[in-house]
Amino acid sequence: MENREELEEKISQLLKEKRYHALKDLLSELEPADIGIMFEEMPSTSLPLLFRLLAKEMAAEVFVELSSDTQELLIAGFSDVELKEVLDELYLDDTVDIIEEMPANVVKRILRHSDPETRESINEILKYPKYSAGSIMTIEFVDLKKNMTVADAFTHIRRTGFDKETIYTCYVTDENRVLLGLVSVKDLLLAEETKVLEEIMETNIIYVNTLEDQETAAQNFERYDFLALPVVDNENRLVGIITVDDAIDVIQEEATEDIEKMAAITPTDKPYMKTGVFETYKKRIPWLLLLMISATFTGGIISSFENALSSCVVLTAFIPMLMDTGGNSGGQASVTIIRSMSLGDVEMKDIFKVIWKEVRVAFFCGLTLGAANFIKMMVIDKGGIAAGGQNPLMVALVVCSTLVITVIIAKMIGCTLPMLAKKIGFDPAVMASPFITTIVDAVSLLVFFRIAVTVLHIG
Amino acid sequence: MENREELEEKISQLLKEKRYHALKDLLSELEPADIGIMFEEMPSTSLPLLFRLLAKEMAAEVFVELSSDTQELLIAGFSDVELKEVLDELYLDDTVDIIEEMPANVVKRILRHSDPETRESINEILKYPKYSAGSIMTIEFVDLKKNMTVADAFTHIRRTGFDKETIYTCYVTDENRVLLGLVSVKDLLLAEETKVLEEIMETNIIYVNTLEDQETAAQNFERYDFLALPVVDNENRLVGIITVDDAIDVIQEEATEDIEKMAAITPTDKPYMKTGVFETYKKRIPWLLLLMISATFTGGIISSFENALSSCVVLTAFIPMLMDTGGNSGGQASVTIIRSMSLGDVEMKDIFKVIWKEVRVAFFCGLTLGAANFIKMMVIDKGGIAAGGQNPLMVALVVCSTLVITVIIAKMIGCTLPMLAKKIGFDPAVMASPFITTIVDAVSLLVFFRIAVTVLHIG
Repeated sequence: MENREELEEKISQLLKEKRYHALKDLLSELEPADIGIMFEEMPSTSLPLLFRLLAKEMAAEVFVELSSDTQELLIAGFSDVELKEVLDELYLDDTVDIIEEMPANVVKRILRHSDPETRESINEILKYPKYSAGSIMTIEFVDLKKNMTVADAFTHIRRTGFDKETIYTCYVTDENRVLLGLVSVKDLLLAEETKVLEEIMETNIIYVNTLEDQETAAQNFERYDFLALPVVDNENRLVGIITVDDAIDVIQEEATEDIEKMAAITPTDKPYMKTGVFETYKKRIPWLLLLMISATFTGGIISSFENALSSCVVLTAFIPMLMDTGGNSGGQASVTIIRSMSLGDVEMKDIFKVIWKEVRVAFFCGLTLGAANFIKMMVIDKGGIAAGGQNPLMVALVVCSTLVITVIIAKMIGCTLPMLAKKIGFDPAVMASPFITTIVDAVSLLVFFRIAVTVLHIG
Repeated sequence: MENREELEEKISQLLKEKRYHALKDLLSELEPADIGIMFEEMPSTSLPLLFRLLAKEMAAEVFVELSSDTQELLIAGFSDVELKEVLDELYLDDTVDIIEEMPANVVKRILRHSDPETRESINEILKYPKYSAGSIMTIEFVDLKKNMTVADAFTHIRRTGFDKETIYTCYVTDENRVLLGLVSVKDLLLAEETKVLEEIMETNIIYVNTLEDQETAAQNFERYDFLALPVVDNENRLVGIITVDDAIDVIQEEATEDIEKMAAITPTDKPYMKTGVFETYKKRIPWLLLLMISATFTGGIISSFENALSSCVVLTAFIPMLMDTGGNSGGQASVTIIRSMSLGDVEMKDIFKVIWKEVRVAFFCGLTLGAANFIKMMVIDKGGIAAGGQNPLMVALVVCSTLVITVIIAKMIGCTLPMLAKKIGFDPAVMASPFITTIVDAVSLLVFFRIAVTVLHIG
């Protein structure tokens, strides 16, 4: 990381001194991903010049790493020849990713400079819905026939492999492009040259449909340790493959999305530092508003016990502790279940096992918390803060029994709501701490005041 | 998913009818990962039998997928010959993973049945600290020399490749095992057979040290789209490689760990359904206790304003809304920053940019929330619930100005604490909603009562 700042320094220096040859040599030794990050930090006026110093293939690889704003800026400055050069070097799935973020006039310009075949493929992929397997696949894969020998396969790979994103998993299809089997380069290398592919190919194939959710597609990589996953259309024809590097991106995106939803934020694809203030505001305010309005109902519960409270104001002092503990307990349960469902560890059919487990965990947690609180109130506070004219022991009993009951209810709500949300087709991640907290707050205050009124004879 | 339950049904049926041949055929068509999941659901008494129906290589692959409890159960039933057969088929990094979870007597038995060379390598890997790059690497990689030709390289790969976890990235080392370069099988396939590796190998290599954090290692896969990453010791000698499938596991583990910490849970490696009630309790109770005790201090703030409260009990009704909104606002900021730091989008040097952005976002959020609340209190409640002998407009002003100030402070605390935690070497993920909420609760109540006392002349 320090290294990168030094490098940025050096590049700026060379740029200022117009030592373009040295700059070119320096850039050629770096990784495209690192150049991309550094270009984002450079003043935008020097970007076109810097970009032109990159070798052709490297230029395309760096281009893919840039943010869409920077890409647009560069495209605006490209001559038609330069644009075509970059486009020719890109893998198709990357071109599609870029196009998806560009304004219409730039898209038109890109399509105009693609050859007809590429243009058709781009339009094909653009038709798949966002977040579908089709939208992240690449159509550049190695396609073999079942009567080829191993030697034929190698000849084919050598002839066509240069432009493929991966050559390590090769697909065997019939004349209608229906997927018959797959064979890895490792299998090919370890087999005799005269073997026919039909004999050595794997025919038990795991594949996804173009319309499948990208998250489901990515889960296959995790479970089966694939390097690539075939994507087929409704007629079982092989239309593309998803490569492991794209699956990793999906896994990270989906985790980020879950985390954001759990924190009551509308998810975004953009990195934090690239998101404007107003955009960030828009992602956060709807949930804050909704939760604030819900919380005013909790306030209503307090109002309805106003008489009880005025005869025992000291009870108010326990509200934050009860609300927070309830929220935290429920949040723990909901977040655990949401993540477990994302990872496929917990399924709908487990719901009763989950509830039963949470009830027991909650019981022990509640008892521990209640006991700790009881000791604190009776020994450390010596009943002092708890008193307020009431019997300190009674107040402690009210607070501690509320704690136990709240924790149990909180954990039950926390584990049930995400599963129910999934059942009715909502995203479980929304049922995390903020949402659960709001519900549990109301519950804990209701329990608290009900018990207080009964035990302390107030209100 | 439905499919799997049907399959489990079918397997149980075949098992009951003792149709072992049919069972064997059925199992041979499934993926090891799927068999692993199904075996976990089967009664443990039928597991040894089912396991023996698997072909030798398949058996090892399934074994790796099982939980450590099930592995232990199977090992206990293995004859020495069976144990050796499974061990011989395992990749070394998987053997090490298994050993790490086994009790001492099982470890001894495993080591006794490994050949001396394997035993030495196992002990070597076991020495690396948990969560280090060394602990997740495999030592089975293709090792080439720089004066080999492409044809030599293929001969070498064909001769030794069978036992390697990946052959697609090959490493060129000198006589002291120092890493000189790497060459992919794609490069080899596309190069002329007579070329010498020195001419075609990539010498700008990204690698990690054995002691590097596994998370840092995994981030390289995300950024550079690698299939494997070399791991070197302090003398730059190549000691192993990390493969992309293990990197994916690390990425998922680290995301889960962050999510658990953000929900105030001590992270665990075990899936939810495999964790016992007491174990789950132990992971959750420390944070609940700590946060509960912290929240009692917030209660102390309320107690210290008891006089103000008793002359205006109605203020109590706003406590849940103010606390929740503050907590949610702070949680949004902290979770966004924590995730952005995990993904490398936000670094320490961005701290002032981050704070400045959060202050502006908070200002707009606070204004919106304050305005919404003001309208609700004045128009919908018609000052009713807000009154309690006080001027409703004044009460609304107190509540709304508290909201604005609380949201701004909450977002500032929310974005700053995770970054400061990282600065002093703590895990930023701990500084998420539950922790932030506890601090913000205290702040919001202090602000609330201070403003109330001043504006309403109470207390």
